[in-house]
Amino acid sequence: MKKPELFTCLSPALLHLYDVSSSIVVIIDVLRATSTIATALHNGAKHIIPVDSVTECIRLGKQIDGITAGERDGKVAEGLEHGNSPFEYPSSFIKNKVLVLTTTNGTKLLHMALDKCAKGIITGSFPNISAVCNYLIEQNQPVILGCAAWKDRVNIEDTLFAGAVVSRIKEHFSINCDSSAIAETLYNDAKNNLYEFMKTKNASHYLRLTNYGLEKDIRYCLTADGADVLCLFEDGKLIAAKK
Amino acid sequence: MKKPELFTCLSPALLHLYDVSSSIVVIIDVLRATSTIATALHNGAKHIIPVDSVTECIRLGKQIDGITAGERDGKVAEGLEHGNSPFEYPSSFIKNKVLVLTTTNGTKLLHMALDKCAKGIITGSFPNISAVCNYLIEQNQPVILGCAAWKDRVNIEDTLFAGAVVSRIKEHFSINCDSSAIAETLYNDAKNNLYEFMKTKNASHYLRLTNYGLEKDIRYCLTADGADVLCLFEDGKLIAAKK
Repeated sequence: MKKPELFTCLSPALLHLYDVSSSIVVIIDVLRATSTIATALHNGAKHIIPVDSVTECIRLGKQIDGITAGERDGKVAEGLEHGNSPFEYPSSFIKNKVLVLTTTNGTKLLHMALDKCAKGIITGSFPNISAVCNYLIEQNQPVILGCAAWKDRVNIEDTLFAGAVVSRIKEHFSINCDSSAIAETLYNDAKNNLYEFMKTKNASHYLRLTNYGLEKDIRYCLTADGADVLCLFEDGKLIAAKK
Repeated sequence: MKKPELFTCLSPALLHLYDVSSSIVVIIDVLRATSTIATALHNGAKHIIPVDSVTECIRLGKQIDGITAGERDGKVAEGLEHGNSPFEYPSSFIKNKVLVLTTTNGTKLLHMALDKCAKGIITGSFPNISAVCNYLIEQNQPVILGCAAWKDRVNIEDTLFAGAVVSRIKEHFSINCDSSAIAETLYNDAKNNLYEFMKTKNASHYLRLTNYGLEKDIRYCLTADGADVLCLFEDGKLIAAKK
């Protein structure tokens, strides 16, 4: 039986090169949007509505009485109640609530995939990597691992996550994609200590976040399966898929 | 003293993210355009005129009585006399002649850098890597390592060359660029045997060229300093810089 194809798209500015409408797109924004999405859903958020502007976030947050959250350039965006740290969303706070979220890169890529009529959209991060991999294997459909990157510039952490997924599921897919091979090589080099790798390589977003004192966030966002949940985008919102 | 910045641009579709007009842009199209350019200039070609279409290649070739050469999709383009293999340009053939060259990716990126008013343009390949590195260090200007990629998709071989350059000259530059760190990591993983790395990773252009029986080209194009010449783009043509 022919295996479905898998591609890694290293930047939203390259998404047009791939056949989005036939594929499940995994939105990857490791630091920190998709890690925070997984955490909030794992901790019982009712659902998460990703929006692409701060204005829309505020408007919708009022309309549906949701929690407005998001960042621009790594910091809480002005006018929003909460930021983009997974630690802001413990169960005691987020359970049964609706989060309206906007971020610099991740929510933008999600809307691009939506505009291009992706066959399916999920979000991926180390905290929910096993759920992502299991789902992709089960679905047996073409996959695009979509790195949200940083303002379209390729980044290390999203590439690492793409590489981690490739290394786990490659036997189930047909992969003729140099970006996937590059990502997997990077991951294999880094996997013994992802945090140290980010530090040693002077990863730009590592530097940005440590400047704000967010080492704890980085460590959490690079750790596998702290929030074991599949985050499915359906009808305009991200939900925790039933097991 | 402040060191100049260095960035790696992994695909022409990302070039707009970088400050081209302040930088020397290194055009990288390892398999095979920039390797062939270095070889032809090293073997005494008078100069090389890179053009972006087959039609223009034929027109100009007639006009100036030059040798028309180029490829589309890895094969000699219809209507041109020669292809894109470095072995087609020994000294006995190319000395004092003018080559008019068009290729799928490399010449396209060169014209993009030209349109964006790059401060300087050179071509880079393993056969002339030392000349490239020495020049970049001497110039002490901002640098963009521009990978020609494959129809805008990131490829392994151009990324490897960018990584090789980064590993050689990084002490002379300020590098805050995840793509450069990714490229260098890839290169360090591959450097003991670049050919085997390309083969093991199923690099897409490795597969394309071996299908045409071009293993010898690939091996040559991955070997350092077989054509020790600096290829400078000046006044619409590529010339061998005087030593």
